[in-house]
Formats: sequence, C-alpha cells, structure tokens
Amino acid sequence: MPQLCVSLNDVRRAAERIAPFAHRTPVLTCTGLDHIAEATLFFKCENFQKVGAFKFRGAMNAVARLSAAELARGVATHSSGNHAAALALAARMREAEAFIVMPANAPEVKKRAVAGYGATITFCEPTLEAREAALLQLLEERGCTPVHPYNHPDIIAGQGTAALELLEEFPDLDTVLAPVGGGGLLSGTAIASTELRRGARVFGAEPAGADDAFRSLAEGKILPSVAPCTIADGLLTALGELTFPILQERVEGIVRVGEEAIVQAMRLVWERMKILIEPSAAVPLAAVLQDQKLVRGERVGVILSGGNVDLDHLPWAGSELR
Amino acid sequence: MPQLCVSLNDVRRAAERIAPFAHRTPVLTCTGLDHIAEATLFFKCENFQKVGAFKFRGAMNAVARLSAAELARGVATHSSGNHAAALALAARMREAEAFIVMPANAPEVKKRAVAGYGATITFCEPTLEAREAALLQLLEERGCTPVHPYNHPDIIAGQGTAALELLEEFPDLDTVLAPVGGGGLLSGTAIASTELRRGARVFGAEPAGADDAFRSLAEGKILPSVAPCTIADGLLTALGELTFPILQERVEGIVRVGEEAIVQAMRLVWERMKILIEPSAAVPLAAVLQDQKLVRGERVGVILSGGNVDLDHLPWAGSELR
Repeated sequence: MPQLCVSLNDVRRAAERIAPFAHRTPVLTCTGLDHIAEATLFFKCENFQKVGAFKFRGAMNAVARLSAAELARGVATHSSGNHAAALALAARMREAEAFIVMPANAPEVKKRAVAGYGATITFCEPTLEAREAALLQLLEERGCTPVHPYNHPDIIAGQGTAALELLEEFPDLDTVLAPVGGGGLLSGTAIASTELRRGARVFGAEPAGADDAFRSLAEGKILPSVAPCTIADGLLTALGELTFPILQERVEGIVRVGEEAIVQAMRLVWERMKILIEPSAAVPLAAVLQDQKLVRGERVGVILSGGNVDLDHLPWAGSELR
Repeated sequence: MPQLCVSLNDVRRAAERIAPFAHRTPVLTCTGLDHIAEATLFFKCENFQKVGAFKFRGAMNAVARLSAAELARGVATHSSGNHAAALALAARMREAEAFIVMPANAPEVKKRAVAGYGATITFCEPTLEAREAALLQLLEERGCTPVHPYNHPDIIAGQGTAALELLEEFPDLDTVLAPVGGGGLLSGTAIASTELRRGARVFGAEPAGADDAFRSLAEGKILPSVAPCTIADGLLTALGELTFPILQERVEGIVRVGEEAIVQAMRLVWERMKILIEPSAAVPLAAVLQDQKLVRGERVGVILSGGNVDLDHLPWAGSELR
C-alpha cells in the first residue's frame, strides 16, 4: 500500500493550528429530511465557516505553517471561487499579503469579496494558460508562496478537520459523504473518517455533468475534467496527484447526480433547515435521495461544503413559470 | 400599577411545559453584522424552531395546558400564517384534532403546510367577519377550544420562553428587540427580559406601513390596524387587550422601519449569516441599522422570529433590473 501524503495526525495538527482562527461549525439535524431519506443525517455546516465555505480550513492551515520570512513575501493562487476568498482572509489573519489571479470576466461579486478581504487581485484572460502564466510571474517577481486549492498536503489536512470535528461529536457514523471537485475535501474527509471510525464508508458525490472523479477512479488514472457542465460551480476541476491515491484507497465510491436532483436537494435544505447552501454543497444530499438503498437506516454524516450563492440568480427563479 | 396577565413564573412554567416538544434554538453571532451595527448582536434563531417560527412555543404551551376532555374535543383558530401551522403541530403532538379556518384564497403552500401537520381546514370568504363566523360555528358545533394567536396568557407566556432562553444563555444583554404584530412575542419578550435583567431595555420593531402599535402606545389606547401595507406579513394585526398593557409598562419604545430597510436587513442576514429568515423577522435588525444611536456599543438580543418564506417570490427578485 503506497504511503499517503496525509495522516490522521496531520489532520489533528491542522485542527490545533486553525483553532484560533476558524469556526468549529455546528452539526445540524432535521427530522423532516431524515423521514425523506430514511436515514439519520448529521449535517456538518461549513456554510457557517469563515468566508462561507470549508475552504478556509485548508487555506488557514497552509498559511499558518509558513515561516515569518515566507509570510513577509506573501501567498498567491489563481482562483475565482471560495479558495481565493479563503486564502485572502487566512493571509490577512497572519498579516501577510495575498495575491490572487482572477480572470477579468469573473463576477463582480467575487472580485469584491476577495478585495474585501484585503487581497491584491491580478486580472488575466479567462484561460487556464493565462492564469498559470500570471501566477508564475507573481511567484518570480515577488517570491511569494503558491497555495494550491487542493493538491497540497496542508490543504488536504486542513479540509479533513471538518470530518474530524464531525466524528468527534458523532463517533458512530456508518457513512460520510462529501462533494468532490479537485478532491481536497473528499480526501481529507476520507482520511479522518476511516481512521477515526474503522469500517466507516466514505462516498464522494459528483455532478453527472462533471464526472471526471468517477471516471478517473473507474479507469485507475487521473482523467481531465473536459467541458464540465453543472450548476455546482465548486466541482469543476480534475483530481490532483495527491488527492487521487487517497480516494483510490479510502473512498467506497463516487455517486453521480443530475442537475435537477442537485437543485431539488438544495431547495429542500433551504426550506426544511432554513439555511443557505450553495449548489456544490447540495450534491451529497442529492446522492442520498437519489438512491435510498445507499444509506437506508444508517447514521450518515453529510458535509455541507459552503453557502455562497448569488441571491439574484437562484436556480429555481421563475420555476413556477415552466 | 395594574396587574399584568403574565409573570416571569408563567414564562418559566411554559418553558418546562414545552421542553419535551420544542427546540431550544441556538443563539448565533456574526462579526460582520456587529461591525455594521457597531454593537454586539445575539440572534435568537426562532427560524429553526418547529414549524419554522416562534409561534410553536405559544401554541404548544396553550395546548399542553388543556385537560384530556378538552383535548378530546380539539382546538381551533382562524389564521393563514405561522400560528395555524403551530397549532396544528402542537395539537398533533398531544393527539388532539386541530380545526383551522383559512380564507379560500390563502396561498396553496400555506394550505399544504397546515394540512401536512394533520389539521382539518375550513375554508371561508377572505374577510375577518367570515373568518370569525366560521370559527364560532366550529366552537359551537364541536365544543373545541379556541386558541387565539396572541391575546391569550398561555400564548404570551409561551412566546416569552425564547427571550428566557436567550437571557439564560447571555444574562448581560443591555437591550432586546422583537418584532410587533399582535404583541404576543413582544409582550412575552418584555416580561422575560425585564424580569431577568433589571434595567434591560426592550424595543418593539414595526413596519412603518403597519404602525398601529406605535400609534397605540402614543395615544394610550389600542388603535386598529387599518389597511396595513408591508412585506412583513406576520405583523399586520392590531394589539390585543392583554398584550397592550404589558407593552405600555415594559417596552421602551416602538421603532418604525420602511419597506426597503426590511428587505435590506433580510438580505443581509441571508448573505452574512447563511440562514433564511422571513421579512417579519428582519424588522428588528432593520431598526438597529436605521438608527445606530439606539444600541451603539451595547450587547443586544435580537429575536429572529421565523424563516418561512416563499422561495419563488423573494423580495429582491429582479432587483438588478431596477
């Protein structure tokens, strides 16, 4: 068995490291959803985390490990999503500069959020090549430290702290589900869950329109995410070389769900639990509701990964008119 | 000083009575909103209460006090809002029948909610006269017990349990705010808060478009709510003879806020706290944000009264286009 890049101890140390900065988020339950799912669901509410997403855990862990000299030169990433906001806030909390490469056509609301956390934004053309080139230039000019959104041991260990807290509070879960994009959250969740609870099953949940993780595990090699098409905009990326082997070893399977199921699950959480979650966060519940045999009668942990939605463009807007 | 109909002891007994049935809701804080308000805010989250609103506390307290003979004949009310759902669920929990009079033109979603809790619905014309006549007929035919939505000592004591829990958890609040419609929540909040914390100020918050409570306190007599016009659909009714004297004696004042301020405060809570609240629940925060002198630098309790919103008709829909 190959040595994985992150151990339970790494996750525990990450938890200590981020404790002064991150929220220990609540675990909510909902009788109504339990009835629908025919299981007992424990929702780990990372929508209540700093910056509204689990991403703060990994970013804070990575930044907290930097030396004073590294902090003085700042950190950098290219991202237009929750990782950008997370790295910006984590850097600010350690009084370091954050340099974020964003495509010029990113939504204004995301630019404002990242700028609001005090980061310096470099705009580039909306291609992966342009983003990587702009990041490289920053690293060369400023000597700052790159913090990858998922393919990084400190990020994986940090994301695993959500499941660590969940299992500490509810040690007898049978199954834990998390969404999978690049695999940072899912691999951290898998390590924490399977180490803390022998026999626990961990599933990834993925949009059918961006099912590269499912296909990668089926083929035994990392496949690119080609033209992903899903409302779950946090789950578009391909797996990384560090996350893939963890999923191979520790994840029971990847469940794919359709777009309508994602929107329905998202709306169900809003209506029944009175909390905001983003589409990516609804994917695991969609997986549970799609195939009730999967976890029927079990005690199931569900990572609600984030709550950053554009309230002016909700996926059910105008749905009555259809 | 006249004898008020509800004492702190009544609220304490109500809390014991409803404990097996109701949620002890969490108190949430939000650094971002504290910065905006220049105060430290403690949000009592009744949007997480059973049926999604504080109304369950009063209804459950009233139903729990009934004798077996009374329970056998059932309970009744006329309402199309949260009180109807609350009474329906409270009755079901005591294995009693609930008869709800609703206007025939009530939204389908509300009819389904009340029916979903097992209540029997009687439809009538959408006038107060028709509703009262239909209720009277039910009482005569079936001998069931009427449970008024606010003008009832058991209801007032039950609603006061939210502030009781809040002050138990945070005993050093300077000010507590609650929305005011019929005054059940505000009068219960005022009794619990001023008894538990000598010197605490309690404010009611009211839409300017339905400001009968403000005018009633100014004139020293209960004025009707004539043609109320507000998005805060839980706050349309006039005060009752039982709630009015409590407000006269225990409430510092009523703060009136405009419609735009209500929608802004509601959206702010959704975006910053990632929780759903209904327009009526946003009125106290709107009051805090409108006049920052009111509570600047203080520790402030805010009752978030409920979270039942129609996701297909959000008040900011299309706001970008304006």
